[in-house]
Amino acid sequence: MKIAVLPGDGIGPEIIAEAVKVLNALNLDLQMETAPVGGAGYEASGHPLPPATLKLAQEADAILFGAVGDWKYDTLDRPLRPEQAILGLRKALGLFANFRPAICYKELTHASSLKPELVAGLDILIIRELTGDIYFGQPRGRREAPDGHFPGSEEAFDTMRYSRPEIERIAHVAFQAAQKRDKRVTSVDKSNVLETFQLWKDVVTEVAKQYPDVALDHMYVDNAAMQLVKEPKRFDVVVTGNMFGDILSDEASMLTGSIGMLPSASLNDKKQGLYEPSHGSAPDIAGKGIANPLATILSAAMMLRFSLGQEAAALKIEAAVQQVLADGLRTADIYSEGTTKVSTAQMGDAVVKAL
Amino acid sequence: MKIAVLPGDGIGPEIIAEAVKVLNALNLDLQMETAPVGGAGYEASGHPLPPATLKLAQEADAILFGAVGDWKYDTLDRPLRPEQAILGLRKALGLFANFRPAICYKELTHASSLKPELVAGLDILIIRELTGDIYFGQPRGRREAPDGHFPGSEEAFDTMRYSRPEIERIAHVAFQAAQKRDKRVTSVDKSNVLETFQLWKDVVTEVAKQYPDVALDHMYVDNAAMQLVKEPKRFDVVVTGNMFGDILSDEASMLTGSIGMLPSASLNDKKQGLYEPSHGSAPDIAGKGIANPLATILSAAMMLRFSLGQEAAALKIEAAVQQVLADGLRTADIYSEGTTKVSTAQMGDAVVKAL
Ligand SMILES: CC(C)[C@H](C(=O)O)[C@@H](O)C(=O)O
Ligand SMILES: CC(C)[C@H](C(=O)O)[C@@H](O)C(=O)O
Repeated sequence: MKIAVLPGDGIGPEIIAEAVKVLNALNLDLQMETAPVGGAGYEASGHPLPPATLKLAQEADAILFGAVGDWKYDTLDRPLRPEQAILGLRKALGLFANFRPAICYKELTHASSLKPELVAGLDILIIRELTGDIYFGQPRGRREAPDGHFPGSEEAFDTMRYSRPEIERIAHVAFQAAQKRDKRVTSVDKSNVLETFQLWKDVVTEVAKQYPDVALDHMYVDNAAMQLVKEPKRFDVVVTGNMFGDILSDEASMLTGSIGMLPSASLNDKKQGLYEPSHGSAPDIAGKGIANPLATILSAAMMLRFSLGQEAAALKIEAAVQQVLADGLRTADIYSEGTTKVSTAQMGDAVVKAL
Repeated sequence: MKIAVLPGDGIGPEIIAEAVKVLNALNLDLQMETAPVGGAGYEASGHPLPPATLKLAQEADAILFGAVGDWKYDTLDRPLRPEQAILGLRKALGLFANFRPAICYKELTHASSLKPELVAGLDILIIRELTGDIYFGQPRGRREAPDGHFPGSEEAFDTMRYSRPEIERIAHVAFQAAQKRDKRVTSVDKSNVLETFQLWKDVVTEVAKQYPDVALDHMYVDNAAMQLVKEPKRFDVVVTGNMFGDILSDEASMLTGSIGMLPSASLNDKKQGLYEPSHGSAPDIAGKGIANPLATILSAAMMLRFSLGQEAAALKIEAAVQQVLADGLRTADIYSEGTTKVSTAQMGDAVVKAL
């Protein structure tokens, strides 16, 4: 089983080191190879996704990804900026199905911005389509406005688009995920305004007929953004497009108060996957040894489950993480009085010990 | 001063009746004329925005709008659905500047989903561009996919677009609004992915040079959705496009816990405006006399201020609303133990009495 390990920038290398530590402790036959990506890729070879890194990723069964981005690359041209690496990997590997759980850990309920009773026991799975929509639609660019409010002026434009088969395959992913959970899917659209999301709604409704055991409801994206705040526990699986999913999955993860704990997976139709924490590269705390490695460690667990067929090992990691939380160990981001503050490496060591 | 009064559907007529009651009590020289819109427009003449209603709106100095929408119209073709009335009015009157305050009233802090310390004293002004972006961009429709993941399959598409002058004028609105407040503007974009929002960011940055007294920062939309939950009080004025503004303004208003209290204004360059509550038509409670009329009454105050030049009268209404809250009067949506529950009409009467 080949794993491409891409630490990236900021706290990426620190948190990846702990996840690798945990994977090594499992004594599985894993072949891990590391390569630079993001700002580190740019430094190493002038491109955020160096060809050798892409090749490694394509040939691997799974990618364990840290995080990319740092202020110092903000002034580069867009194609050279760190985040292009992640868009490039999604596109090159066809990673269309993004799984973003928003879970509120019992021990961390108090850390949420929301009142505890609204988030205690929260467990939402957001499934975001990841290779279509306005992220990749052509044409896009700048031009002289052909019409509109100010014809002849400079304008910029992008194309939102979804095809029927693209919607079908992500809908199947969502319904099948719901079958293993509470059997409810909320499809989020903006069909009252957008042609793209009228087709989205139509197709999801059709696909639902193949899953009579799953309840489907539809919600406009603006309402979904409100309901997540008002009553997050009403959701089980949420499925939506790339752009709306970007916004709602971040909103949902922040609601939990435990964004340092949330893993994510991005899969293609061959179950090849990219696994990364939901949080970013946090350059402000990089190198200090205080970042929370648990989201990355839990991403490694998802990797074992989804791409490597190692369910037992995944469960072992997840149980170990529960254990260290129960033992009161906390990195700075989730620390509260009465618990024990530990460093990034101490947290990794504790998970290994709990395995 | 001519006001077009468009009650609409659901609770629209009930809440508008109270706002009209309050306006009448001010003894200003207001000429109010009522017309059907939304589902009511469709019932009356087969179209959500009947020509006579549009004409009335165009000739008025301001429009006082209730709310539109009801499940019974959900199966109509899109062009006949109630929300088309509101899109049609925005477009026909060029109402490009949408003001959506998200205020947390002292007396209602407990009603928020968020912990009281995060929202006490919250006062954000979201300025949403309202006549551009993917809401109105052409081309849009369905077609055979010319390329992409599944060439030849059915696809739907929309066009996101902004021209330089469209961005300039909304940026000026935002900076000028900030000058009267805490002098901070956060411009929300997705310039790391979208051409449209790279131009947005560039133009807002340029316009900012004309407002050296206002501090500008930029935030990606996904991060903005998170920061609203994490630390809403960090924001003063937020300016963004039509689609992101739709999502973020609803999220922000729900954060306050007082969505039944939040007015909105949509203005064109002649200061003609449409004024409506931030909440919807709530068909489930229509006709019961329990809806909260305060958002609509406060919308009438905004109308007096922005379109009719009656600042003193606006302040009078706002003070009267503060008074009824201080007196402990609450409609069902904001009721809590120890306060006095009142009906829609009783609330309107109380505001009149407090004037
Ligand atoms: C970095 C950026 C391009 C990316 C996105 O918008 O998809 C990020 O926000 C994410 O959600 O993974
Ligand atoms: C009804 C709908 C078209 C509208 C919008 O998306 O603009 C509404 O959500 C709003 O925010 O006023």
